[in-house]
Amino acid sequence: MQLNKEQVLQALSNVEEPDLKKDLVTLNMIQDIHIEGNRLSFSVILTTPACPLKGLIENACRNAISHFISPAVEVSINMTSRVTTQKNTGVPGVKNIIAVASGKGGVGKSTVAANLALGLAATGAKVGLIDADIYGPSVPIMFGLEGAKPQASQVNGKTRIEPIEKYGIKLLSIGFFTDPNQPVPWRGPMVSSAVKQLFNDADWGELDYLVVDLPPGTGDIHITVTQSFPITGAVIVTTPQNVALADAKKGIGMLMMDAINVPILGIIENMSYFTPAELPENKYYIFGEGGGVKLANMINAPFLGEIPMVKSISESGDAGKPVVLTEDGILSKAFLHLAERVAQQISVYNAKATDLQDVINR
Amino acid sequence: MQLNKEQVLQALSNVEEPDLKKDLVTLNMIQDIHIEGNRLSFSVILTTPACPLKGLIENACRNAISHFISPAVEVSINMTSRVTTQKNTGVPGVKNIIAVASGKGGVGKSTVAANLALGLAATGAKVGLIDADIYGPSVPIMFGLEGAKPQASQVNGKTRIEPIEKYGIKLLSIGFFTDPNQPVPWRGPMVSSAVKQLFNDADWGELDYLVVDLPPGTGDIHITVTQSFPITGAVIVTTPQNVALADAKKGIGMLMMDAINVPILGIIENMSYFTPAELPENKYYIFGEGGGVKLANMINAPFLGEIPMVKSISESGDAGKPVVLTEDGILSKAFLHLAERVAQQISVYNAKATDLQDVINR
Ligand SMILES: Nc1ncnc2c1ncn2[C@@H]1O[C@H](COP(=O)(O)OP(=O)(O)O)[C@@H](O)[C@H]1O
Ligand SMILES: Nc1ncnc2c1ncn2[C@@H]1O[C@H](COP(=O)(O)OP(=O)(O)O)[C@@H](O)[C@H]1O
Ligand SMILES: [Mg+2]
Ligand SMILES: [Mg+2]
Repeated sequence: MQLNKEQVLQALSNVEEPDLKKDLVTLNMIQDIHIEGNRLSFSVILTTPACPLKGLIENACRNAISHFISPAVEVSINMTSRVTTQKNTGVPGVKNIIAVASGKGGVGKSTVAANLALGLAATGAKVGLIDADIYGPSVPIMFGLEGAKPQASQVNGKTRIEPIEKYGIKLLSIGFFTDPNQPVPWRGPMVSSAVKQLFNDADWGELDYLVVDLPPGTGDIHITVTQSFPITGAVIVTTPQNVALADAKKGIGMLMMDAINVPILGIIENMSYFTPAELPENKYYIFGEGGGVKLANMINAPFLGEIPMVKSISESGDAGKPVVLTEDGILSKAFLHLAERVAQQISVYNAKATDLQDVINR
Repeated sequence: MQLNKEQVLQALSNVEEPDLKKDLVTLNMIQDIHIEGNRLSFSVILTTPACPLKGLIENACRNAISHFISPAVEVSINMTSRVTTQKNTGVPGVKNIIAVASGKGGVGKSTVAANLALGLAATGAKVGLIDADIYGPSVPIMFGLEGAKPQASQVNGKTRIEPIEKYGIKLLSIGFFTDPNQPVPWRGPMVSSAVKQLFNDADWGELDYLVVDLPPGTGDIHITVTQSFPITGAVIVTTPQNVALADAKKGIGMLMMDAINVPILGIIENMSYFTPAELPENKYYIFGEGGGVKLANMINAPFLGEIPMVKSISESGDAGKPVVLTEDGILSKAFLHLAERVAQQISVYNAKATDLQDVINR
């Protein structure tokens, strides 16, 4: 039997990408086919390094070769990825912008943004994080970077700010440029131009995902960011109370306005309940129950999960090392899972929004 | 023995107002002296109806008459109050403006503002509450006033907005004028003018205290309010985390700026700990411990107390009836006590800031 490329593509065209609902060949995800006798190797180029379906797809490929060609073929598969993009994000080199938003303050936006960014990076993606909360920047404290000052360099005669690298991601916070002991009594136009610089004047290089931690509300920063930098999708954080849900709904309402039109990747409910170590069976729903799911159903968006109130989350944030990096198994797994879900959602949106063939070839 | 006014004033000049550190006669707090035989009656005009020292002062007056004149005098004292004022608040008829601020969102500003306002009213004061959080107004939900629309009336040819009355206080929220299901994507100047109208175009009547629930941050609303309406003092709400304290410090920094110069009445730590019903001895410091006291010491302001995380606080807020009005003894007592402390602080500040004689006679 003489193996050939045609046969291989024919066989693999029976494997469907479960999220994107098309076969791997049509999706142009099969590349680098090499044949040597009955040894076959090829690459499967997933649209997210975090793809939770990686194992499933690899198995399906092996089965297809075995079934449609022969069990005798020795198959070696290189599972790799190239994050897709769909629209010009307005920041050269940045494929996707993910906004973390809420409407209400103090619900855990910064906590989710930081752990999401680190979770995406843990899967192998190139990740940046912008902390755009001018009046309450959290990145300096959460990443142990109080007092850090980004370098400015000259690139082609223009000043470029160098994001600070920590824990494998690139960071910029409006807090790096203001005195932590001084208030920032700035009105809207000043705030807007400061935030724009974090996107435009920084040397982000190539990024798969740029996570943006937005302030509460639907004000100047939101208007400026959504108008200047087309956002791939938004993750909405809420706590379970009515007053938080009301604000979250408004935040979502703004993102869904025709002129802005940011897809909602999903809802995360934070501070859902508390479980004392002494009563591991008990869940105390201090802020009420089920608000996140209710909101997700209302706007027909995926519910991405709930995060309990856990001391190590606030402690790790205060100590400069977000919880996803610490050894606490359950929480870091939860945030990694969240990162996978978000990456998956983005890959689906990108596939829907553009001719995928075209996108993967970019 | 023939009693006379002179004698009475002479005797009462030995009684000191413990907070204001001057005697009642100098403070002009003794009025309406009536003498009939050995029957004496007079009024003590306190500077706050909430005065926690009421009983103490009344006793001291009785003792002074008994000691310096004669135990035989039959004394009848009318303890009353007239809330003082010190500066033109910019809102006619409003004696004092109390800002509730934090820097960070979600720490419980609105919860404190609502319960403080109701607590002040419970002591007999005339109270108003402005919810100036344009992107996340809480008063409509917290007071069960969703969908309420304030009446507009014509006074001297100018349009006047009628605050809504509920639970004995006057309320205006920016949320009464916006659609709760629609976002408010407004930039700074629009926000500022909307908030100004809540102060200027509303028919507040005579108020002892106008409590203002400020949004998080130090932005347009803060600049506008502090510049246009001299604030008597601010209550700062924080949660125990470093990230919250950092923002609170900035909020305070802004209020203390020379151009703004708002006295800090004190710090309240909210969400200090959680105690499960099954383990009434345990306090779980989910967000860390002691941050509020630390902050109070740092800025040399009074620490006004800590509020634990209790389901009934968030439930009552969501249900339209703030917890101070409900039957839960401990929490409502705590908020009433807070109201007393705040009123006391204001009376002290007013006394320090102006010639008190002059103030009381106003
Ligand atoms: N699930 C949680 N358990 C315990 N603490 C949390 C949790 N989520 C957030 N926190 C803490 O609550 C505070 C507010 O969270 P943050 O992410 O800063 O909110 P936001 O950015 O929405 O204002 C922070 O101190 C954070 O560490
Ligand atoms: N001590 C507390 N215990 C339980 N829930 C609380 C407590 N303080 C505030 N909450 C709830 O937390 C949420 C945020 O409080 P809120 O007063 O709206 O904060 P802010 O005005 O600072 O954004 C509300 O749902 C409120 O009911
Ligand atoms: Mg934040
Ligand atoms: Mg509020």
